[in-house]
Amino acid sequence: MTRWRLTVEYDGGPFMGWQRQDHGPSVQQALEEALERMTGERAAFTAAGRTDAGVHALAMSAHVDVAKALTAHRLREGLNALLRPSPVSVLDVSEVAGNWHARFSCVSRRYLYRILNRRTPPALEAGRVWHVAVPLDVETMREAAAHLVGRHDFTPFRSAHCQSESPVKTLDRLEVERAGDEVRIAAAARSFLHHQVRSMVGCLAMVGRGQWSPGDMKAALDARDRAALGLNAPPQGLYFAGAVY
Amino acid sequence: MTRWRLTVEYDGGPFMGWQRQDHGPSVQQALEEALERMTGERAAFTAAGRTDAGVHALAMSAHVDVAKALTAHRLREGLNALLRPSPVSVLDVSEVAGNWHARFSCVSRRYLYRILNRRTPPALEAGRVWHVAVPLDVETMREAAAHLVGRHDFTPFRSAHCQSESPVKTLDRLEVERAGDEVRIAAAARSFLHHQVRSMVGCLAMVGRGQWSPGDMKAALDARDRAALGLNAPPQGLYFAGAVY
Repeated sequence: MTRWRLTVEYDGGPFMGWQRQDHGPSVQQALEEALERMTGERAAFTAAGRTDAGVHALAMSAHVDVAKALTAHRLREGLNALLRPSPVSVLDVSEVAGNWHARFSCVSRRYLYRILNRRTPPALEAGRVWHVAVPLDVETMREAAAHLVGRHDFTPFRSAHCQSESPVKTLDRLEVERAGDEVRIAAAARSFLHHQVRSMVGCLAMVGRGQWSPGDMKAALDARDRAALGLNAPPQGLYFAGAVY
Repeated sequence: MTRWRLTVEYDGGPFMGWQRQDHGPSVQQALEEALERMTGERAAFTAAGRTDAGVHALAMSAHVDVAKALTAHRLREGLNALLRPSPVSVLDVSEVAGNWHARFSCVSRRYLYRILNRRTPPALEAGRVWHVAVPLDVETMREAAAHLVGRHDFTPFRSAHCQSESPVKTLDRLEVERAGDEVRIAAAARSFLHHQVRSMVGCLAMVGRGQWSPGDMKAALDARDRAALGLNAPPQGLYFAGAVY
């Protein structure tokens, strides 16, 4: 039995999320069915992060155990051939030790959130960005983001379905930058609460629009009250950007 | 009657091209139907370039004459609302003189071609790039491209269906650059022959793969023989990037 580490890119649009679901297609199922067609084995893929419906991945890390003798090259090429036409691509495969774990060995997770900030809706980037028509003030968004970096009780940014044992997390990075019509938000932490990135981005957009001040962001964090917050940013702007081990 | 200039972004994937066709949807038809629903008028849109099936636009220039009294703002917002869910977005509208013409007043057209140059197929950029799995040598592609810049008889790079009066054109710019996994080719000229950009890109890829030398590109141009050439690059990597007036 060999444990393989995979780096996977996917378009989250047609999927119910990473994790297998009874009610629709998932990235995990697409990978597992491709592996079964290739090897005859039913093996479970485990990922660094279980992205929600519609959330994309630039470089998701995952692992799977395979009995059949394979090379990394053959596994990657075989999966990619059998995954067509699903929008899932195995970018890289390497052999890892049997105790290496895509989820539990991960020490840092990175997310990217893309906002298309222009008056008119996206044509080419539809389904890939959150369209915010009102001009966003990136400077005040940066000020607000700085209040969230560090070790905090992130209860206000936590979904009702969050299964994390503790709401206390350390946010290592939350950076806001403008690139033409786009506002990009990069987040990094050892782990995140469920919906934390989308909730933080939703609040940052309120700051960028002038509905909140950077101080309101700090007050919301300190109040530990979920009810104080606005809506989550939608899933189609969110990308799992990488895992560090 | 007011003549309006429009700048339009579109995903060429679901369309038979810019121009109205009997056998399938076109960008022109989508715009004309939106305008008719908005104003009751049947007016023809004219574009700077009539892109082929599957070719995208970052910023296509077009014009249309409208009798109903409108502001630029209302025309843009109304069209965008009625174009949904077609992947066509009107980025900008401005009033122009009655003799301004999107096609005949245009003095320079710019195209961008995107090649995803990595081993594994695209998931997020599927339908937006040409996937070339073999590593491309950008330096030799640049050398080859330099042979094409200037005034030449571009017969070898002309489609059999080209309706241009003369195959002699002046290519102002043909630049090749790498950005991560992508090789981007930017082309500019007053006008292009039918399939000229895709044919030049197809040949540049042959050079990048080492199947042709830069000198072979010059020989192909000098031979004025279409039969000497390889396949056109596919439409999904091509973007109409802008028109200058």
